[in-house]
Amino acid sequence: MMNKKILKNSLMGTLLGFVLTVGLVVGFTAPAHAAVDPEVGYILNSLLFLIGGFLVMWMAAGFCMLEAGLVRTKNVATMCVKNVGLYALAGILYFLVGYNLMYSGVDGGFIGSLSLWGASETAATEVINVDGGYSSASDWFFQMVFVATAASIVSGTLAERIKLFPFFAFVIILTGFIYPIQGAWTWGAGWLSELGFSDFAGSTIVHSVGGWAALTGAIILGARKGKYDLNGNVRPIPGSSLTLATLGTFILWLGWFGFNGASQLALGSAIDATAVSQIFANTNMAAAGGVVTALALTKFLYKKVDLTMVLNGALAGLVSITADPLSPTIGQAILIGAVGGALVVFAVPLLDKFKIDDVVGAIPVHLVCGIWGTLAVPLTNTDATFVNQLIGILAIGAFVSVASGIAWYGLKYTVGIRMSEEDEAKGGDLAELGMEAYPEFGHGSQKI
Amino acid sequence: MMNKKILKNSLMGTLLGFVLTVGLVVGFTAPAHAAVDPEVGYILNSLLFLIGGFLVMWMAAGFCMLEAGLVRTKNVATMCVKNVGLYALAGILYFLVGYNLMYSGVDGGFIGSLSLWGASETAATEVINVDGGYSSASDWFFQMVFVATAASIVSGTLAERIKLFPFFAFVIILTGFIYPIQGAWTWGAGWLSELGFSDFAGSTIVHSVGGWAALTGAIILGARKGKYDLNGNVRPIPGSSLTLATLGTFILWLGWFGFNGASQLALGSAIDATAVSQIFANTNMAAAGGVVTALALTKFLYKKVDLTMVLNGALAGLVSITADPLSPTIGQAILIGAVGGALVVFAVPLLDKFKIDDVVGAIPVHLVCGIWGTLAVPLTNTDATFVNQLIGILAIGAFVSVASGIAWYGLKYTVGIRMSEEDEAKGGDLAELGMEAYPEFGHGSQKI
Amino acid sequence: MMNKKILKNSLMGTLLGFVLTVGLVVGFTAPAHAAVDPEVGYILNSLLFLIGGFLVMWMAAGFCMLEAGLVRTKNVATMCVKNVGLYALAGILYFLVGYNLMYSGVDGGFIGSLSLWGASETAATEVINVDGGYSSASDWFFQMVFVATAASIVSGTLAERIKLFPFFAFVIILTGFIYPIQGAWTWGAGWLSELGFSDFAGSTIVHSVGGWAALTGAIILGARKGKYDLNGNVRPIPGSSLTLATLGTFILWLGWFGFNGASQLALGSAIDATAVSQIFANTNMAAAGGVVTALALTKFLYKKVDLTMVLNGALAGLVSITADPLSPTIGQAILIGAVGGALVVFAVPLLDKFKIDDVVGAIPVHLVCGIWGTLAVPLTNTDATFVNQLIGILAIGAFVSVASGIAWYGLKYTVGIRMSEEDEAKGGDLAELGMEAYPEFGHGSQKI
Repeated sequence: MMNKKILKNSLMGTLLGFVLTVGLVVGFTAPAHAAVDPEVGYILNSLLFLIGGFLVMWMAAGFCMLEAGLVRTKNVATMCVKNVGLYALAGILYFLVGYNLMYSGVDGGFIGSLSLWGASETAATEVINVDGGYSSASDWFFQMVFVATAASIVSGTLAERIKLFPFFAFVIILTGFIYPIQGAWTWGAGWLSELGFSDFAGSTIVHSVGGWAALTGAIILGARKGKYDLNGNVRPIPGSSLTLATLGTFILWLGWFGFNGASQLALGSAIDATAVSQIFANTNMAAAGGVVTALALTKFLYKKVDLTMVLNGALAGLVSITADPLSPTIGQAILIGAVGGALVVFAVPLLDKFKIDDVVGAIPVHLVCGIWGTLAVPLTNTDATFVNQLIGILAIGAFVSVASGIAWYGLKYTVGIRMSEEDEAKGGDLAELGMEAYPEFGHGSQKI
Repeated sequence: MMNKKILKNSLMGTLLGFVLTVGLVVGFTAPAHAAVDPEVGYILNSLLFLIGGFLVMWMAAGFCMLEAGLVRTKNVATMCVKNVGLYALAGILYFLVGYNLMYSGVDGGFIGSLSLWGASETAATEVINVDGGYSSASDWFFQMVFVATAASIVSGTLAERIKLFPFFAFVIILTGFIYPIQGAWTWGAGWLSELGFSDFAGSTIVHSVGGWAALTGAIILGARKGKYDLNGNVRPIPGSSLTLATLGTFILWLGWFGFNGASQLALGSAIDATAVSQIFANTNMAAAGGVVTALALTKFLYKKVDLTMVLNGALAGLVSITADPLSPTIGQAILIGAVGGALVVFAVPLLDKFKIDDVVGAIPVHLVCGIWGTLAVPLTNTDATFVNQLIGILAIGAFVSVASGIAWYGLKYTVGIRMSEEDEAKGGDLAELGMEAYPEFGHGSQKI
Repeated sequence: MMNKKILKNSLMGTLLGFVLTVGLVVGFTAPAHAAVDPEVGYILNSLLFLIGGFLVMWMAAGFCMLEAGLVRTKNVATMCVKNVGLYALAGILYFLVGYNLMYSGVDGGFIGSLSLWGASETAATEVINVDGGYSSASDWFFQMVFVATAASIVSGTLAERIKLFPFFAFVIILTGFIYPIQGAWTWGAGWLSELGFSDFAGSTIVHSVGGWAALTGAIILGARKGKYDLNGNVRPIPGSSLTLATLGTFILWLGWFGFNGASQLALGSAIDATAVSQIFANTNMAAAGGVVTALALTKFLYKKVDLTMVLNGALAGLVSITADPLSPTIGQAILIGAVGGALVVFAVPLLDKFKIDDVVGAIPVHLVCGIWGTLAVPLTNTDATFVNQLIGILAIGAFVSVASGIAWYGLKYTVGIRMSEEDEAKGGDLAELGMEAYPEFGHGSQKI
């Protein structure tokens, strides 16, 4: 078989011969290295999306285990249904409306087009553009798992008192409309992108978005019965399984390498490979900074180390570095994560002061640290400015809060969003599923 | 050091110069892109097998967690022993006899050769064929984890009453002989392959095979004591940990990207990368379709959402798309998965009607949806025909059922396959292992 | 834009034209295949480190689940704090001192330099060396997760009686100094490397190091109250969750593909891809050999299969093959793992004879099998000699034991390392964290 590449090279070589000679004469310097074969680049770019995508998909399991571990036994199975269901719905909605709303023809504006993504597309019909390209299905897969992440954040905060199907209704609104519309502003080449707002892997666009939706929901839904008494005292309600919470945190930590690493969006050059490598190291070390800070701070403040705070410290570090995991040095990444870890330790009791009942601490982790991480970008990345970062945070925060508020109130005054007092006492598992997560494990002294 | 590639290009360029000129004159159009360097293709093909392989290996953990979560506490440790043990045995048997029985010299026939795979092979001795090739060890690793999957399916169905070592004996027969022989018919280039039977990643060849073996075993072994009373009533026996069952499902979902994605068997071209990407997206969305269908159907039929049904809905979607995850559009993939999810919801009570006691619902998921997925191939893939698909399903079903039946009866009338009534009541953990999975967790009201 | 590659090819083609012609005339034979484009090699090498790195990072979760499952309920949350904390600390210490101590300017000697790794390095400033290279951040990430593995081994052995912060202090010493110094001897091109000591992925350098540190700690710390009575009887103290222990083992097994596979350190050629593939297959089969041996031996010796022994059998096989997962054939790998599995079955009661209380069996698995695996290298790899292997084992063992002994005694006689009797009885969770891992699960009959 004839080597087509050689054929092409020879042709172009002949055509460029004259240019070359002139170049030599005038002192043309040959580049140190030629670019990677574009088809190889295409394969590697797609592969990065696929590896990153399956790692982020795995985060759905992480959120599920974290949240199932932090609710009481009586709500554990419901937590699992929510997490499996929201991941499925997020994908379907992102296919039906989300992706094109976010990425199709935004063009400096506020919104894309309302249409299915690649409805009739298969691998056989996809037009393969090897120059700097990647398979559009790999990109879709990677973007899809991100929207699921935003939805996962909400389920934890509102646990133990929200009704199942109204929750799913909100997931549909969030993943089909709210997330993609604000996503279009930056990642879809919309107005925030043109302004210069910088959010590499989504401290604001994914994590704060989930956080704002969760905060709005928590306020409208109200706290669990018994969480706050009339004197303003906070009753701690311990989760049912700290091993599951720990497992969930490790899963999320692992998945974050895909979340941040594959947000480089390319692996077809040495520069990209180097960038992804730095992102892996920084992502890991920001989490480490968050862990150590939370560990030391809870020991110092409360004399006892708090495992759930340590776990949230890891996640705080991860959210904090997500807005720019590429520019910082490792030392800077540790510090950015450490500030995140400290923020969580102080934000958790602050929320309780406002009687905002966040079952798993998702608002401190994803909203507070999402803001911190986004504001921290200009510290290490000269392409970003503090003002633009603030505009992005405020615009997205305002939009998501208002849109979520409308959705939550709409659901509240139609189908209702809150379980009956009786059902809440019984727990979601018996009330909504008619089953128990651990039917044989007996009931300890702390059973509430 | 001199760049050998340039050298070669220049040589061939010179040789092809004349051809080129002629080509231009007669209107020859240069191809848009030349092929990938074969050595890079070799690396990428092998890498796909390795990534796919470790993801499918991870499914062994998924089956283990799913099954451990769906049996009662008293059989949990036994379930873990079975799953770790069967994965180990499957690998050893596939090395000793399975691989060559499946892939060596089948040549349109019914069976390969009885010999060790690569007995004296190491990386140093392997002959590297870069043209369209891959490392044979990477291929072996990927094929090996598939056979373990088939065996994992059986362990769930027969849980809580089968004796440990007779179970392992069946695993040896299944993974060393039954699976490889029928696998040779299609994937080993045997008679079904020549006929045109199409099963991309194994809806029939892996999942139904496990399902047939499980069904045969369930019939011969009989139901657990107390599952069905004399009036034909079915007593639900809830599993010990729905979080583990959920974790197991997420693990399987993750692993399935490797199962289906790496079944493309190549990553050395843009076309392959595009195919793998479409497979990832379709695989995910079929599972999503299964989840949403099972969720909606159980709510509609029983007024309560059933978590175990939702989990099986995900798996049903995954099994259904496995026969062809490449040809469908995403919309079609959702529908194929949704039908699978519905089939499971109806098949589970149907099995109970026949008093076939399938502890984890593996027969509805892997056998019923395996058949459905295989029959659905011609709907989106014009290379397949309904008749050929049916022939493949029936031939493999008949062979596996008869062979498994002989094996089960052989074991039954020699060493016995069923635990004593006393042991069954006590549970496998105390009877066979002399230990408890959760010695400190106390016993709830549903302790049976 | 002009294609620079074509430009360069044409230029060099012209320059090499004469050489080529001469080459042809004198019988120059074109190579069968040119080397992979160095930039592609750079990308693939880095990618191997990143994939291997995230798999080994995942092993931190594996150790955590294994150890949390094998301690009693009252120490489970503490076990989780230790595992999350040690992983974070290991990374920070390896950044601050460890990496350069291990890899910077060792030059045949005993120790590197005391300085931060890549303090001001980012992807933008990293000098990219494509010739045989990889991103230094990817390499750092991969090396970093190894040091965490060594620390994870220690936490299991010393569980249920060591104080939290003294444990972390030891982790700092181990990961910042002890591990990197001995690591420098072989992997940092120090004196053992010049001698010819061979330890491909760290049977000795990682696993035995953790094992020696654990053994020294266990002797100095003493056994748990009630483990051994005055008559020398051993009281078995069953772990709280065998499903978590099983999950942890599966996670470790999965992670080991990264541990051993990416220790090939390159993926930029067909030879490397073939090597990594063989390593995957051998790693898996050694674990399988360990499982089957432990399963059969415990059945034969004790009439009952012991799940924890089967799990340790898998890990034993994995540790045993780690010193050389590349040279053996698959059959040899199974045998090497099988010997490891047998060693564990015999070493566990032996340790009890010496009243060395190893809560999870880490010393038999990581130290004993680490030694075995290292001694087994010359059996399949002619580059290694039995004498050199023994020198490496003894030198590293002596150094780590002495250094660990000094550290443990230093901690013992300053801050103290052992929990008070009262705290030990209460459990670490209430004593050090003030929380319960499973507050609602009740207490079974075996509660101790």
